Amino acid sequence: MSSFPSLSRTRVHGLICGTLEPGPLNTLADIDGIAVGHRTMCEGDLRTGFTAIVPHPGNLFREKLPAAVEVINGFGKSAGLIQVDELGTLETPILLTNTFGVGTGVNALIRRAIAENPEIGRSTGTINPVVMECNDGYLSDIQAMALSEADAEAALKAAGSTVEQGSVGAGTGMSAFGFKGGIGSASRVFELGGRQHRLAALVLANFGRPGDLVLPDGRRPHPKEARHSEERGSVIVVLATDVPLESRQLKRIARRAGAGLARLGAYYGNGSGDIALAFSTACKIAHFEESDFIVRDILKEDKIDVLFQAAAETTQEAVLNAMIASPAMRGRGRSKRPSLADWLDGRA
Amino acid sequence: MSSFPSLSRTRVHGLICGTLEPGPLNTLADIDGIAVGHRTMCEGDLRTGFTAIVPHPGNLFREKLPAAVEVINGFGKSAGLIQVDELGTLETPILLTNTFGVGTGVNALIRRAIAENPEIGRSTGTINPVVMECNDGYLSDIQAMALSEADAEAALKAAGSTVEQGSVGAGTGMSAFGFKGGIGSASRVFELGGRQHRLAALVLANFGRPGDLVLPDGRRPHPKEARHSEERGSVIVVLATDVPLESRQLKRIARRAGAGLARLGAYYGNGSGDIALAFSTACKIAHFEESDFIVRDILKEDKIDVLFQAAAETTQEAVLNAMIASPAMRGRGRSKRPSLADWLDGRA
Amino acid sequence: MSSFPSLSRTRVHGLICGTLEPGPLNTLADIDGIAVGHRTMCEGDLRTGFTAIVPHPGNLFREKLPAAVEVINGFGKSAGLIQVDELGTLETPILLTNTFGVGTGVNALIRRAIAENPEIGRSTGTINPVVMECNDGYLSDIQAMALSEADAEAALKAAGSTVEQGSVGAGTGMSAFGFKGGIGSASRVFELGGRQHRLAALVLANFGRPGDLVLPDGRRPHPKEARHSEERGSVIVVLATDVPLESRQLKRIARRAGAGLARLGAYYGNGSGDIALAFSTACKIAHFEESDFIVRDILKEDKIDVLFQAAAETTQEAVLNAMIASPAMRGRGRSKRPSLADWLDGRA
Amino acid sequence: MSSFPSLSRTRVHGLICGTLEPGPLNTLADIDGIAVGHRTMCEGDLRTGFTAIVPHPGNLFREKLPAAVEVINGFGKSAGLIQVDELGTLETPILLTNTFGVGTGVNALIRRAIAENPEIGRSTGTINPVVMECNDGYLSDIQAMALSEADAEAALKAAGSTVEQGSVGAGTGMSAFGFKGGIGSASRVFELGGRQHRLAALVLANFGRPGDLVLPDGRRPHPKEARHSEERGSVIVVLATDVPLESRQLKRIARRAGAGLARLGAYYGNGSGDIALAFSTACKIAHFEESDFIVRDILKEDKIDVLFQAAAETTQEAVLNAMIASPAMRGRGRSKRPSLADWLDGRA
Repeated sequence: MSSFPSLSRTRVHGLICGTLEPGPLNTLADIDGIAVGHRTMCEGDLRTGFTAIVPHPGNLFREKLPAAVEVINGFGKSAGLIQVDELGTLETPILLTNTFGVGTGVNALIRRAIAENPEIGRSTGTINPVVMECNDGYLSDIQAMALSEADAEAALKAAGSTVEQGSVGAGTGMSAFGFKGGIGSASRVFELGGRQHRLAALVLANFGRPGDLVLPDGRRPHPKEARHSEERGSVIVVLATDVPLESRQLKRIARRAGAGLARLGAYYGNGSGDIALAFSTACKIAHFEESDFIVRDILKEDKIDVLFQAAAETTQEAVLNAMIASPAMRGRGRSKRPSLADWLDGRA
Repeated sequence: MSSFPSLSRTRVHGLICGTLEPGPLNTLADIDGIAVGHRTMCEGDLRTGFTAIVPHPGNLFREKLPAAVEVINGFGKSAGLIQVDELGTLETPILLTNTFGVGTGVNALIRRAIAENPEIGRSTGTINPVVMECNDGYLSDIQAMALSEADAEAALKAAGSTVEQGSVGAGTGMSAFGFKGGIGSASRVFELGGRQHRLAALVLANFGRPGDLVLPDGRRPHPKEARHSEERGSVIVVLATDVPLESRQLKRIARRAGAGLARLGAYYGNGSGDIALAFSTACKIAHFEESDFIVRDILKEDKIDVLFQAAAETTQEAVLNAMIASPAMRGRGRSKRPSLADWLDGRA
Repeated sequence: MSSFPSLSRTRVHGLICGTLEPGPLNTLADIDGIAVGHRTMCEGDLRTGFTAIVPHPGNLFREKLPAAVEVINGFGKSAGLIQVDELGTLETPILLTNTFGVGTGVNALIRRAIAENPEIGRSTGTINPVVMECNDGYLSDIQAMALSEADAEAALKAAGSTVEQGSVGAGTGMSAFGFKGGIGSASRVFELGGRQHRLAALVLANFGRPGDLVLPDGRRPHPKEARHSEERGSVIVVLATDVPLESRQLKRIARRAGAGLARLGAYYGNGSGDIALAFSTACKIAHFEESDFIVRDILKEDKIDVLFQAAAETTQEAVLNAMIASPAMRGRGRSKRPSLADWLDGRA
Repeated sequence: MSSFPSLSRTRVHGLICGTLEPGPLNTLADIDGIAVGHRTMCEGDLRTGFTAIVPHPGNLFREKLPAAVEVINGFGKSAGLIQVDELGTLETPILLTNTFGVGTGVNALIRRAIAENPEIGRSTGTINPVVMECNDGYLSDIQAMALSEADAEAALKAAGSTVEQGSVGAGTGMSAFGFKGGIGSASRVFELGGRQHRLAALVLANFGRPGDLVLPDGRRPHPKEARHSEERGSVIVVLATDVPLESRQLKRIARRAGAGLARLGAYYGNGSGDIALAFSTACKIAHFEESDFIVRDILKEDKIDVLFQAAAETTQEAVLNAMIASPAMRGRGRSKRPSLADWLDGRA
């Protein structure tokens, strides 16, 4: 549940995902301007929370970012994806939470946007809140619908450049491959246009059947106590980059999150809402803009492979980081999840 | 704001949309088992509400219906569409409301589903609430976020086989082509497999630039006071039929709602969230089902044209019914919308 | 079968589609640099041909154009659409032909591209030929597969800035709404960024049930001899503009071709392959490019409505132009199609 | 270049993809009624051919099969996919070939369908030929466009229940991960509805950067001579099953082919046209059908995971089979590809 720069926990265990170099923090915060915050609720039968991703420190409604969505498997209840797909822009922070926290997260983002932009729903249009989710009902009492708008606000307010990983925020009660899941992150650096660029992932990992996990070295960790069961989780992948891209390209990059998941042994199970959202911080698109045209740098299409590779690698590593950073947990009822870290250390 | 069987208000004015015969009620209630209810909030600066469509009287989570979604223009914030698209099923009633009421509608549908199905989020998966929206911010104080879960419940509780049209429920504060918009409905009957079948539409009409409306007889009603302005509305079209269909076919039918809108003069403006959802009541898909296979009747593909035609015709007529059933209204600030009925009667 | 500037045949008959002004030629050639050519085969039982659209006079493989595709109804066999959708670029001229001419058109475009670019399939990748089609089997002996690569080449070689309309090229044997169909075109002008811009359509019109056609003035022309029958045609819409756009925007514009078709009375019948392709000539994307990034002007999204409107209007007018420019025709067997021009003149 | 039952070459080398059991032949022919044939052209600078998949022995136009397409990465020129996606049916055999053989394959399938169904293009509609492709230009002179319709016919005529793998048919000149690629196949068995069912894959493998390949045991074979280069290949995956499914479900299954590719180390490179097509042999859909409705068995959605798993596993194993079955090859110019079999045997 701590942050750890560059040498991620996965790498500490000798597990290397792919061949590209990680960034200095090896988290989403390697992308300039991005902040991440958590509100963790871990009490009684509750193991849940909000995680907030703030794509840039300014007013997102007034300065939108190019974005795109890839629905890898649409058994999910995330909000705001239709408009991102149509317009190719992101205009709010992204909230991650449990499946039944989406409505409350939506309301919190609307209220926050109105407070910052009193013209919303008056002299200009409305706002498209993006809230993504997984089902933490195994470890947490999801029926309680315990999260409030204040909790969402707390996650947003806590946002900073240190990315806590593991059983924090929305990741508090999540499970993956029969182990404890949660929030994980990773990044890659590469050169384009004569200078260093970066792509990073943050995942909410709550997917995978026990026994299906494959480590980069070919080992297959199986939690001792888990029964073979149908996949009923989900995984949310948020990808960010400082490379200038149009939304069609971001959609192609988001699709490669699926390659990262598959390398972990997943096959996008029927009940798993596997969704990736990608955005670029390289260009801000003004809501109130006088001119009819904007000038944008766009990556040449045949240079995009390194971003595809980085998307697959960071997704894979971020999931492992989420799992390794999460200690074993007991939850609602008699539920419990062992830690992949313990398995790797020969203790589970 | 009243119901009117068969001879819809549009037909009373001599306006005929297409060539198929309307059903006995000429509303969504012509599809057996469907109920519609409204909660109207019309006080102070508020002109808003909820409209509930209950697809069948049973437990929708346990007996889902085949369904599909067509995003005609994705500038919209509706909830639940991703999963309908992936799984091809509808498992909650549909709520219509204003753009900032979606989160509250989602929460209401979750709480209702849990109450009916205590195993949700415990021994079985979660639930996919479907809430669709338009922006009524011109006539109503949308920033107030005045609707509560109790309001959503009230609309659900009010559901019956009489479909009130006009400025009721979610339609209370809507506008269309510079006139007052709202809730409208229409139906068509046709023969398949040797017996009568039906398709019906219910729309939440809040789209169209002043001056763009074209009536079926070629006239172009222009509200006297409206300025030529950019389109910032939306329209939601819900189509229901008793014909047995697979979800791919329902998606094709939903796409034809766009043809109905275009015949009214719309071109799916940038700022207009134009979304259609179609479902069939002919087959119930059990959530808890022992057998691995289910037996279904499916329409032969080359017999589908009559449903395409009915989708276009009912969408067109439902929008006109919404407008003609809505009297002129004054709203928030100095806003007002004339009635198309008055224009047709030579009074506007 | 002749060209006619500005005052299109449709306008000569007093039929006005929408409110925007047409361009000086009121054809696709209003977009600078575009050339159109036909190879017409009208002999014995054959009523078919090729129509070539050359988007710019240079080497299209080396200087691609931003492009997008909208499949309105996918009952069609057009080639090359998958790659245009993925990469957002057009790299060959567009050929229109009959359904069974697609393979030959593909081969012709490949051979032409290799001749111009000997490195194709050697030191660089392959080429994505775009060939779109309708079924002219009612009037023509489509089983004969009579068109050769030389015919495709002839259409390409004939390309110029005069756009012949009616029963020419691929339009030779086409039908629409029970009348003679064919090739039609129209354009619109509007101002963006302080100067005039244009959008134009060229259609291959072969769709619509007899009796479904609605003229802009509300009249419903029904060919006397036609039986009410299922729709088995198709329509191809090619849209071009000089406005700088990204491919996502072009896809949105292409979708509005469907609005133009619906205004004519169509509902995208099951058996009708209705497909729109849009491209922009404002920016050339180099195949061999040293730099990793390119700088592009992009239209601000909320200025796009005029292009939506122009797409709907030009599609509608281009179809009417195709029909009115086509005299009555007898074809294979005892088949015949009356002319809409004759109906308008009271002669049919 | 030989057939090998059950114990595939991959398994002979101790490489196991996943956990499900393979079928008796471990090829596409494990699905009852499917036949596969090749026409191999290996002379001079040519290393190319056609591979034909005949889904059932009857008249496919009159008895279509449910089918679906997933475009994993659309840098490809395959024909017929748009209509499969819209109608959810397959009505011709599937031809695989080189990128510049698609047009000729299309013509061959049209002529074959007309010969069998003289009413095509006359009293009934046209036919949708499905031809899929990869670029074999590295080893073969693709510019020669050497394949004729007679070659396509030869592959169709050769179709039988023995599935030759490796450098045969369309696979003759293909490359994968710097090694020789080609045609591969694999199958899985599982129980549904109280009896054994099967799913099988046949791939045309021509993708993957040298050095990216990961074997199921974690080893990373790198061909000694290959330079690190951009991915410019493609891969076609054809999945078949005897489980009764609707096309939406088949599309979900086809998407899981991407998981199989990713497990091999692929990330769907920019220049790689990665496309999957899935069909079911469990239900035939009559072209000429009197009744308006058809009765179909459909798999219950929450039983679909085993098919997802089988799709991923067979795709992965089929690619390895393609590579291991292909001996080293010299081709056009000084081009050559080593064999993965030699690498596994310590000889490369």
